[in-house]
Amino acid sequence: MDIAVIGAGAMGSAIARRLVESGARVLTYLEGRSAATVERAKMAGMEPADLDAVAGTGLILSIVPPANAIAVAEQIAAAIRRCGAKTTFIDCNAISPQTMTQVAAIFGGDCGVVLDGSIIGGPPKTGQKGPKLYISGDAADSSAVLGECGLQVRRIDGPIGAASALKMCYAGINKGVTGLGTAMLLAAIRSRADEALKRELQESLPDLDAKLVNAIPDMYPKAYRWVAEMEEISEFLGDDDPAALIFKGMAGLYRKMAADREGGGLLAGQLDRLNNG
Amino acid sequence: MDIAVIGAGAMGSAIARRLVESGARVLTYLEGRSAATVERAKMAGMEPADLDAVAGTGLILSIVPPANAIAVAEQIAAAIRRCGAKTTFIDCNAISPQTMTQVAAIFGGDCGVVLDGSIIGGPPKTGQKGPKLYISGDAADSSAVLGECGLQVRRIDGPIGAASALKMCYAGINKGVTGLGTAMLLAAIRSRADEALKRELQESLPDLDAKLVNAIPDMYPKAYRWVAEMEEISEFLGDDDPAALIFKGMAGLYRKMAADREGGGLLAGQLDRLNNG
Repeated sequence: MDIAVIGAGAMGSAIARRLVESGARVLTYLEGRSAATVERAKMAGMEPADLDAVAGTGLILSIVPPANAIAVAEQIAAAIRRCGAKTTFIDCNAISPQTMTQVAAIFGGDCGVVLDGSIIGGPPKTGQKGPKLYISGDAADSSAVLGECGLQVRRIDGPIGAASALKMCYAGINKGVTGLGTAMLLAAIRSRADEALKRELQESLPDLDAKLVNAIPDMYPKAYRWVAEMEEISEFLGDDDPAALIFKGMAGLYRKMAADREGGGLLAGQLDRLNNG
Repeated sequence: MDIAVIGAGAMGSAIARRLVESGARVLTYLEGRSAATVERAKMAGMEPADLDAVAGTGLILSIVPPANAIAVAEQIAAAIRRCGAKTTFIDCNAISPQTMTQVAAIFGGDCGVVLDGSIIGGPPKTGQKGPKLYISGDAADSSAVLGECGLQVRRIDGPIGAASALKMCYAGINKGVTGLGTAMLLAAIRSRADEALKRELQESLPDLDAKLVNAIPDMYPKAYRWVAEMEEISEFLGDDDPAALIFKGMAGLYRKMAADREGGGLLAGQLDRLNNG
């Protein structure tokens, strides 16, 4: 079984490794990527290939930052048309249903099948089941082969857009909670109410406090990616929904945390001292 | 011991009842209030009084909706000046530190002592310890008497504004999480991703799911009050903090939920069906 995985980041390479371990041959396209990414792909057992070879596989997964999803779709659709191949393309990215509809339109009806996918959970690790790959728009069960190759696939009974919407909603809650905790702990630190807040959280919201203690430091290196993800959630909700503004604010907060990391991590240090105090 | 409690809502009347049960005489000012409020005050053992009598007590607690905090402070400060009394005024409301500074300025230096208070937790019930009353700016320990009268008082080592900041931060997390859950469950319902989202939350964030199952229906009747509270949090964070936008969005969301309740509860019904399904 040949599968192409576009994107050899932490998630893409770990998914690829799982597929390779299950007996699949995994191609990827690495032109213009950093040495670190090329090395990561190699370690995962991914085989560098040109776009025509990628287009020739029966199944292509796009696992890239949300801001790159459209560009990848355009690149792959062009290669498929050039080769006259038919393939199944699964966009697995944290994009809004509206962006997913654009992705599907890029492929049109002449390139094979386009499916809406979304990944919930962290990159798979050896010995663990790994994240869930939700799939919608898959009436023909074209994604079943991925279940046979070691992934946890869960089909949603809904059209293109439903899997993306699920991811938006889940991330909105999960990463939103982390954002709320980050914002309010920082505000408490500025106001010298941080020790009282920490104690109150431990007493009256202990589960939430425990989640924040883990989730906030996990967020620092990912904050720069979460900016675009929060913007996608805001777009997903749409201007008619007052909650769209919540996620514009979340994007700004994560932009601030990304800048803090670039600039030496002053805020991150304050948060860590409070959480470990 | 004579204490005045301004505000005979759910919280004010329950706090007053606790004080009465502990042997205090509790006065309140009810002019222009609804029959339901007058009845609630009476049931709590509060004694209706005019503003001069209120000003003559040694200790006055303001426990009102945040939008009313300034008006109450002006009314009481005027009465204190009229009577030439000195008293301790504790603003216990969910207002920003900036608004609290305004409250303190209204009393100036000639009316006695002004303290910053904030209440975390629900109204006290018989047999329970009840909410915590945080107090800052209390170098002279003027609030100690409330601890002797059955309240859980916790002094914060900080100036006027620190107790208000603590409340803003705690409410931002606690009511923010409820808002995130409400917004994303509604979005999932619109996108037909609600059943998959509910199952994913139960599986991967069970503590948070359990919190939302209780907190979302508890919110419906309070949503109209939370609008102003979210706006106070946004003002507290200030325009320089990108998270201020998060709470402008939260205010809009709660405004929507308040309007939904006024209009028959269509959205609340959808949320309840999903959470109880």
